[in-house]
Formats: sequence, C-alpha cells, structure tokens
Amino acid sequence: MDHTTVGVIGGGPAGLLLARLLHASGIDCVVLESRDRAYVEQRQRAGVLEQSTVDVLRESGAAARLEREGLVHDGIELRWNRRAQRIDFPALTGGRRVWVYAQTEMVKDLIALQTAGGAPLLFEAEVTAVTGADTDRPVVHYTHQGSDRKLSCDYVVGCDGFHGVARTAIPSGARRTVERVYPYSWFGILADVPPSCDELIYAHSPRGFALHSMRSTTVSRLYLQVPNGTDPAGWTDERIWDELDARFAVDGDWRLERGPITSKAVLPMRSSVTEPMRWGRVLLAGDAAHIVPPTGAKGLNLAVSDVVVLARAFAHLASTGSSALLDAYSDTCLRRVWRAEHFSYFMTTTLHVDPEQGDFATRLQISQLDRIASSPHAAAELAANYTGSVIE
Amino acid sequence: MDHTTVGVIGGGPAGLLLARLLHASGIDCVVLESRDRAYVEQRQRAGVLEQSTVDVLRESGAAARLEREGLVHDGIELRWNRRAQRIDFPALTGGRRVWVYAQTEMVKDLIALQTAGGAPLLFEAEVTAVTGADTDRPVVHYTHQGSDRKLSCDYVVGCDGFHGVARTAIPSGARRTVERVYPYSWFGILADVPPSCDELIYAHSPRGFALHSMRSTTVSRLYLQVPNGTDPAGWTDERIWDELDARFAVDGDWRLERGPITSKAVLPMRSSVTEPMRWGRVLLAGDAAHIVPPTGAKGLNLAVSDVVVLARAFAHLASTGSSALLDAYSDTCLRRVWRAEHFSYFMTTTLHVDPEQGDFATRLQISQLDRIASSPHAAAELAANYTGSVIE
Repeated sequence: MDHTTVGVIGGGPAGLLLARLLHASGIDCVVLESRDRAYVEQRQRAGVLEQSTVDVLRESGAAARLEREGLVHDGIELRWNRRAQRIDFPALTGGRRVWVYAQTEMVKDLIALQTAGGAPLLFEAEVTAVTGADTDRPVVHYTHQGSDRKLSCDYVVGCDGFHGVARTAIPSGARRTVERVYPYSWFGILADVPPSCDELIYAHSPRGFALHSMRSTTVSRLYLQVPNGTDPAGWTDERIWDELDARFAVDGDWRLERGPITSKAVLPMRSSVTEPMRWGRVLLAGDAAHIVPPTGAKGLNLAVSDVVVLARAFAHLASTGSSALLDAYSDTCLRRVWRAEHFSYFMTTTLHVDPEQGDFATRLQISQLDRIASSPHAAAELAANYTGSVIE
Repeated sequence: MDHTTVGVIGGGPAGLLLARLLHASGIDCVVLESRDRAYVEQRQRAGVLEQSTVDVLRESGAAARLEREGLVHDGIELRWNRRAQRIDFPALTGGRRVWVYAQTEMVKDLIALQTAGGAPLLFEAEVTAVTGADTDRPVVHYTHQGSDRKLSCDYVVGCDGFHGVARTAIPSGARRTVERVYPYSWFGILADVPPSCDELIYAHSPRGFALHSMRSTTVSRLYLQVPNGTDPAGWTDERIWDELDARFAVDGDWRLERGPITSKAVLPMRSSVTEPMRWGRVLLAGDAAHIVPPTGAKGLNLAVSDVVVLARAFAHLASTGSSALLDAYSDTCLRRVWRAEHFSYFMTTTLHVDPEQGDFATRLQISQLDRIASSPHAAAELAANYTGSVIE
C-alpha cells in the first residue's frame, strides 16, 4: 500500500492550493480527484477573489495569469428604490480590494503548475471510504483505472465538497451540522457581451434580487433571484433580459447591454457548517465543512483561508514536531467561517425578497440599505466583510 | 365652541413637550388628556433618554430635576456566551451619551411646568372623535366633567398612543400600517435594591434575553424574556432572581443583588409604523404613529424627535406663513422612525431567542455579538444608533 504524509481528497481549488502549499514546504501529499481533468477545468463556480486569496496565490507563485487577466475591483454598487450607492473598498478598508477571476481559471492554473512539477495528482480517482480516522494511519480507499486502491496517510484532508466522502469519515455522533436553506435560488447566465458596468452591481428590487457581474471584459455574468425549482427552459432570452432590466432600473443613466446567452443554470442556496472541522487525523476544508449562499462571494475565499491555516499547521508540525496548530485548526477556521456565514446571510437576506416576507421586512431592508448609504461605519462594515481580513 | 391653534390629544411626554415648545414660540395650544393627573404621573414606561432628548429638555427649561437626579450613562454592557463587552458611547460617537431618567419623572416635570404657566392642560378629557381633518378647521370632540365639548383647531396633533383616536381621523384608505409582532414578551420588575452594575446590561442567553437596568441609585429595573401570555403570578420572587442569575451568568466577578420586588408586569412587544404621519390637518406623533419593541430604548426618544420637528414646523408657519415644513413633516420624521425601527428590530432579534429558531440562527446571533466585540465599525454602529443622532 502506498503511503503519503497528507492525503488530499478533491482536486478543486482547496485541494490543489493545499497541495501546492504543502509541496512548497517539502511535505509529501497526493491529490485524488474523482472527475477527469476536462470536467474539473470547465465547471463554473465563483469568480470573486478576496485580497487575502490573491496574496496567497501570489506568494505561492500561482498568480501569473491572474495578474494579466484578472480584473481588479475597487468597489461594488448597491441598488435599491431606483437609487444607487457605490461602496469604495480601498477608501473604507485602508487599501483592500477584490479581483474578478473565475474559479475555473484559478483551477486551470493550479493544475498546470502541479502537473508540471508538483505533488502527484490523480484524476478519475474516486474515493469510496476513509478508514482509521482515529488511528495514526488513516487509509483512503479509492478506485482508479478500474482497480481498487488504498493510500495510507499520516493525515487525510477532505476537500471534496458538501457531498463528499471525507465528512462521513467522522462518526455522526462526533460531528454536528447546522444549516439553513433559503426560499429562492439564483438563475445564472453567461452572455457574450461586455459588462454594462466595470463593477459588480447588487440590486434589491420588489421583483427580487439581481446581480450584475462578469467573467472577463467580453463576457457578462448575470443572476436573477428565482423560486426554488425554476426550470431555465421556461425562460426565453428576451424574458431574462427584460427581467434583468426591470430589477436594475435606476434613476439616471444606465443601460444593460444584451448579447447572446451561452449558459443558463439555476443554483440553490444554502448555509451550512459542520463542526468540528477536525476529528482524529481527518480534517475538512472548504465546502466539505461549510457552505455559504453566494451573495457575499465567500465560498471560494473560505476554502482558501482553510487550506492556508492547514498548510501552516502541517509546516509547523514538520519543523517542530508540535501538533498545536493542527489541534487548533478547527477553532481557528471556525472563527472566520462564522464571520463569513453571518455576512453571507446578511447580504442574502438584505437583498433578496422572501416571497413570504411582509411589508415590514421589506421596509427594514430598505432602511438597512439607506443606512449603508448614509453611515460611514455601516459602509465600512460591509467593505471590511466583503474584502475579507488577513488570514490569522 | 372654543378655538385654539393646535389641539393636542394626549398628555404623555409627546403631547406635554409639544405644548411646551409651542408655548415657548407663542403658539396657542390646548392639551387634552383622558386620564387623571395621578394616573399619568404614575404609569411606568421607558427610562433611557438619548443625547438629543436631553438637549431638547435642557433648551426648553425642563431639565432641572433631570440634571440633579438623572444618571448619565457612558456605555452599556453586552453579555453572551459567558463573556461581556462594554460599548463605550462617547469614545465611539464623538461624545454622545444617554441618561437614565424615568419617563414618568419627565412627565411629572412637564406637567408641573405646564400647570404653573403653560398652555391649558385638561385631565379626564376623553376625546371621542376628530372631524374635518380635511378642512381648515378640524374639530376635536371630547367629554369633560360630564359634558360633551368641542374644540375647534387650526391643526390637531395626535399624541394619544397606539390605541388612540387621532389615527382613526385619517380615513383607513389614506393610511397604511405595517407591523410585526414578536413571539416573546418582557417580564419587567422593579426591586428596592441598588443596581448591581452602574450601567445597563443586555444579556443574550440560551435561556432567553435579560436586561439589567435601574430607575435610580436605589431602585433596580430588571427584565426577562418570557413567552407571550405569561402570567406574572406564576413567578415567585425566588424564581425570578434565579432566572436572572442564570441569564446574566458570566466568567469573572459578578453578583446580582437581590431585594424586595415591588412591581411585576408583562409587556408585549411590537413593531408598527403608520404612514403617512400627516393627513390634512391631523398630524400624528409618537406611539400614535409608530411602536418599537423596547430593546433599543427608542420609543420615548422617537416621540420627542417627532414633536421637535413638529414644533419647528409650526413656528415656521407662524413666522413665515409657509407650511413647507409641515408638509414635509411625515417624510422628515419617517427617515428617523425607520432607522429606529431597524435598530430596535436588530437589537431585539440579536438578543432574544425565538423559541422556533434553529441552531443556525443562534450561531448567527453569537457571530454578530462576537463581531460587535471585535470590529470598531460594528461597535460604532451600535453606539451611534443607541445614543441617537441630532434631530434634523
């Protein structure tokens, strides 16, 4: 049976970045990804990188294309009641900003670096079980190229998402998941048209939330709040653009540019946290441990902060023999996780219209948005949460 | 039929302060109060005065006893998860603070001033109807000393509370009330024991919210979150003190002093706003137009800011002949009202435990409280909202 120091389950951004950080510290690891490379390099996910995420990618030598192609954003725009308010990130946070760079591009960059000279990365390696989490030698069971295999590890890290196997390696009596589902989904489209605005626009409307975003200078990414279970096939392109127009409506000059829609998908929304994030020698990172609704753009960034904390802890163990940082891993991460959960919930419930909500709730949303526009402290809170803090 | 410029319905703090401000500007008014003087001077209500409320009382010469007996508070304490965090008001707001001085004492002071040389103030004058709101001469119909009377007015101001008559003078089709009720009440007690702490303590606990407050240096005022419909008779003194002890529990030195309980009452909680606050020649102020749950200590202060705006508008009309400020009255007040409604809702839902709420909601409350303790912007937002802004 093969052995490695850290067995990493999942070749998404969390697993790949962890492997890169461990490799840089001279720590052996193996990454097992259940899908093939083409699939992994194409799946559409998040697109906003916090300052600290960009800092980590730069420090780890994985930011070359991001520097060339990523779009630096110094703020976002909020819209409600036909008015607009820009939130100036650097001015409110002492210089922090965000980058628009698709997660799928970040994944391509990390895969290219890893296959060119990093730790072993196996595609189509489907993990079926993790055993021995409470021993010194946990084992990852997986299938690869038609045969059953085992990988013995000092530690196993689950970066395999909400539906992954790693979490189930922690006995159900030893973990606790708290969650909330929302009574709406996001209907996301990609369109071959330059963004109508240089920045993201988060719009509250009586018709529901809308988000103007982008993948590049030539591709727009737009979202509409829709009821859960909405079938994209029921929406013609014209209906989509008309609805976006209605929700972004604002007094003053503004025109939403239309173009060919190349992708339509409905994404459910959920908040979820599994605690603890470590049990025995199994550690969870990213979506395997926590899910946020996308409104705060926190999912990918939380995954990055988890693996930064984890890589430091493994480096500390390797250089000093002390597992103190590993032992603190769950508590360290959960402080940031709960901050992000709260912010994501705040953004979601401030901007979306719950079909069941009464007039009073709607007026509170307007009052909150008015406050962000008038109170520097309220605006600074939003900016600090959105751009994210230094990873502790 | 008698005539006055401004007929004021209700001799609570809003009506009495309005009469004082109008009288100072040389504007005729008459105050009609349905209860007798002893009742009005004894009813227990709020006890926290914002900076701007104290400023108004000082400017209007009604603060002599407040200066002697009021307790200046430079902060509050929050408790949750057995930890405590003080919010320093002057440091976070550039010098704003609050005063603890019972509303009933403020009412006594205003009645004494008015009866000694202010506008007419009639007790046991029960208003039965207001007619002609859409004419130049609205009429207040009331009974006094066994006979039916009428008071012709240029304007009528309803300071007669949530269940008052004034609001119904606005046709139901012309007004809109949005509201929210809460699934818990406050069980308030007065106890003859010095406060256990110089400041107010707002405590979040898995057992429910508790508030430590005071009426004076010798009388404590304490509250427990209880289910709606709770009968105070079902609570022995010992049970009350034990429950308070459990909810205020904190690591470190702390002892809740016990003493004879002299009053027990259960208070329901509600958020409500009626718009517009003016229709024709009838204007609403204070609880007649809006109710907040008591957690933010905003009810009395909103009533004061309403009548300050109103008195300025009447003075403007008297000196210039322009009704511009009166025409803007509703919009002017509603900006502050909705800010206070939002803050009161925020304080209430952050600190109380909804019996139906899940673990995720509880963790969000903890995350919010942790954030207030760690982010100067979050703490400053709370301090700014609590101490209140200058009345615009």
